[in-house]
Amino acid sequence: MDVIVGGGVVGLSVAWRLSRAGQDVTVVDPAPAAGASHAAAGMLAPVSEVSYTEQPLLRLGAASLRGWPSFAAELAAEAGFEPAGDPAEAARIGLGLRADGTLDVAFGADDLAALDELAAYMEKLGLPVERLTGRECRRLEPMLAPSVRGGLLAPGDAWVDPRRVTAALLAALERRGVPLVRARVSELLRDGDTVAGVRLEPPGVPPEIRADRVVLAAGAWSAELADVPVRPVKGQIMRLRSTEPLLGRCVRGTVHGTPVYLVPRGDGELVVGATQEELGFDTRVTAGGLYELLRDARELVPGVTELEVADIVAGLRPGTPDNVPIIGPSAVPGLVLATGHHRGGVLLAPLTAAILLGEEPELAALCSPARFDDASTTDTGTAGTTGTTGAGAGATEETESTDAARAPRGRPPAPRPAPPDRAATAHTEER
Amino acid sequence: MDVIVGGGVVGLSVAWRLSRAGQDVTVVDPAPAAGASHAAAGMLAPVSEVSYTEQPLLRLGAASLRGWPSFAAELAAEAGFEPAGDPAEAARIGLGLRADGTLDVAFGADDLAALDELAAYMEKLGLPVERLTGRECRRLEPMLAPSVRGGLLAPGDAWVDPRRVTAALLAALERRGVPLVRARVSELLRDGDTVAGVRLEPPGVPPEIRADRVVLAAGAWSAELADVPVRPVKGQIMRLRSTEPLLGRCVRGTVHGTPVYLVPRGDGELVVGATQEELGFDTRVTAGGLYELLRDARELVPGVTELEVADIVAGLRPGTPDNVPIIGPSAVPGLVLATGHHRGGVLLAPLTAAILLGEEPELAALCSPARFDDASTTDTGTAGTTGTTGAGAGATEETESTDAARAPRGRPPAPRPAPPDRAATAHTEER
Repeated sequence: MDVIVGGGVVGLSVAWRLSRAGQDVTVVDPAPAAGASHAAAGMLAPVSEVSYTEQPLLRLGAASLRGWPSFAAELAAEAGFEPAGDPAEAARIGLGLRADGTLDVAFGADDLAALDELAAYMEKLGLPVERLTGRECRRLEPMLAPSVRGGLLAPGDAWVDPRRVTAALLAALERRGVPLVRARVSELLRDGDTVAGVRLEPPGVPPEIRADRVVLAAGAWSAELADVPVRPVKGQIMRLRSTEPLLGRCVRGTVHGTPVYLVPRGDGELVVGATQEELGFDTRVTAGGLYELLRDARELVPGVTELEVADIVAGLRPGTPDNVPIIGPSAVPGLVLATGHHRGGVLLAPLTAAILLGEEPELAALCSPARFDDASTTDTGTAGTTGTTGAGAGATEETESTDAARAPRGRPPAPRPAPPDRAATAHTEER
Repeated sequence: MDVIVGGGVVGLSVAWRLSRAGQDVTVVDPAPAAGASHAAAGMLAPVSEVSYTEQPLLRLGAASLRGWPSFAAELAAEAGFEPAGDPAEAARIGLGLRADGTLDVAFGADDLAALDELAAYMEKLGLPVERLTGRECRRLEPMLAPSVRGGLLAPGDAWVDPRRVTAALLAALERRGVPLVRARVSELLRDGDTVAGVRLEPPGVPPEIRADRVVLAAGAWSAELADVPVRPVKGQIMRLRSTEPLLGRCVRGTVHGTPVYLVPRGDGELVVGATQEELGFDTRVTAGGLYELLRDARELVPGVTELEVADIVAGLRPGTPDNVPIIGPSAVPGLVLATGHHRGGVLLAPLTAAILLGEEPELAALCSPARFDDASTTDTGTAGTTGTTGAGAGATEETESTDAARAPRGRPPAPRPAPPDRAATAHTEER
């Protein structure tokens, strides 16, 4: 039996796919679908979302996007959405799946040059993108600011409503009879070197669940249970409401050096996101966070100022040192990882499940937990005996994360595993 | 018996003072303390709040401010706040009453000149104010922006927490046994030309309450029940939260031509207000409203960006053509008005009650409902027969309001009663 720790979009997707494959699974989460998945905008945008220097992530995203339509159609059907028996229509209505593309817009000459570079790179990879003038951008999206000078259309990019997706996953799991235990995992049970289940809190729930495998899909909280280089990256996000849709597709751009995106939904909701803040487990909605979102969103689409504010939340993304998720068996027998999805949890959920089912061996290699073991072992030679795998990665993330948060999109610093020093190790141990 | 229509800070204050004076009163409101009083910041700031061209309002505010300490002490005692038997301390803790002054700050040369002019005028009136340099401002309030070039300190200005004040008024009324009917007044009952009570909705409450006098204190909704030139002026306001107080006193200023204020509370709350919008009965919190508040607040006090957002609401102020409230017997026998307090409801509540008790005949004249009767009669000669008193005022407000909202503080347009024309009359009738 498998225990899935974490009921966000990744944990629920893995549980659902494993259950469909005949596996006996149980999901444990104190508040399913209430973490990063609740805050997420739901862009399925591998092309426009990642920088062109992040090729592994781009490959992962493109593969997962290809899997989304069938994933969504099957999910919608299993969750009970079947309008007129049309699976695509069920996915559209039930999950908010739309595939009208993303328009990445630029204001300044530098932005335009970056778009050109990105377009050339995408074409080299055989990914369909289209360079547009400012006028062409405004023809597609008339509410765009007059100062938009050009754009890059990724017509294949899609998006879903993550809250509908997790609701559908919960419904599908319930229909399949998969147990959902609303409890917190306080620690992993061990039989010698092997992970053998989970211990639960608070009292009142079963004190423990024994399992053949534990799949750790606890997002930003994963490092509390196992030695994984995952840190919380705070994101504040805002949902606006309009009577008529302001946009026909996802629009994004870089304003004052920070990326901002606007995701429209059929019901008139317009999601504006998102800040990227390295503040630990802080989920306060702040005046400064709202200010930046509003300032940048109105720069792209001035008309947003007229919209009603429906919802403001902050979530914690599970960041990794190289921005690539950590998926697959860990070095510890019995422990499987499905975490570190950072900004891509919704996009990468179908692929994550597929990797754990052994369906994508080549892509699985890109996400392998072993890549951090190797770095640590090479650098220190102590990982095997002291278990500082996480500490090594922790050091990387410390230096990396700050740079990554500040770097303009499209120019992230290259991943560079740093040797752990005493300070970094101490920091990791203090957590 | 008197029926008070409206359970905001004005209606409740009037009810409480009338009851204390031995009058038999009943308050009617579908949702007491949930309107403009709930949104209000609670500045008791006649000196810094009004423009120096609004002398009547300044006189009213100064008089009401003088009455606030005893009003608050008596209210705190009647509501049951009596820490160590010290009434002033009870008012401070129970109602959030503080009298640490308001600091009005200026950025540009024009702003400084306006402050000088205002200071001279205040001194002429014998009101204590002090002109400060930028450095002196920052010595008082170290969190002020470095770009603040000067300020005007009104050391006598005070503030309360309006939510605590209405809660205390409701508690005091309950202790006195004053009935509070949670219902909506659908119309005024009439015996011939005389108002004789109120008709209530929904079914289930007593269908009507007969009364010797009806006191209309329904704020922005007053014009739905009687012919009064009151219109809704929307204000969006934001409550931030900090662990340590950012400011020691109220701070205000004009940024990009719009006024903004920050009101600190002992519990770390910092109120940032407020927009002024002429949009009818619209209480949506909008992206644009929030953006302007945040943009301007951080211009005055950059540190606000670090604070948590605790609450965002929009309220409707009851505006009048000349920004002065309408208090006293109306032209209709049996109908008394206590409405049109615009931005000054909290400040002017004690004075409003005093006027209705006959304690302030001279100030009562400034607020007399008859001032609108006269204008209308003079201009049209038909008010007596067609009852277009409200229509005349309606026309005034139409032109006036838009200008007033746009005018920089300190330079409001002079009140100018406009002759009602067909369009304006039609507009009023359509409401």
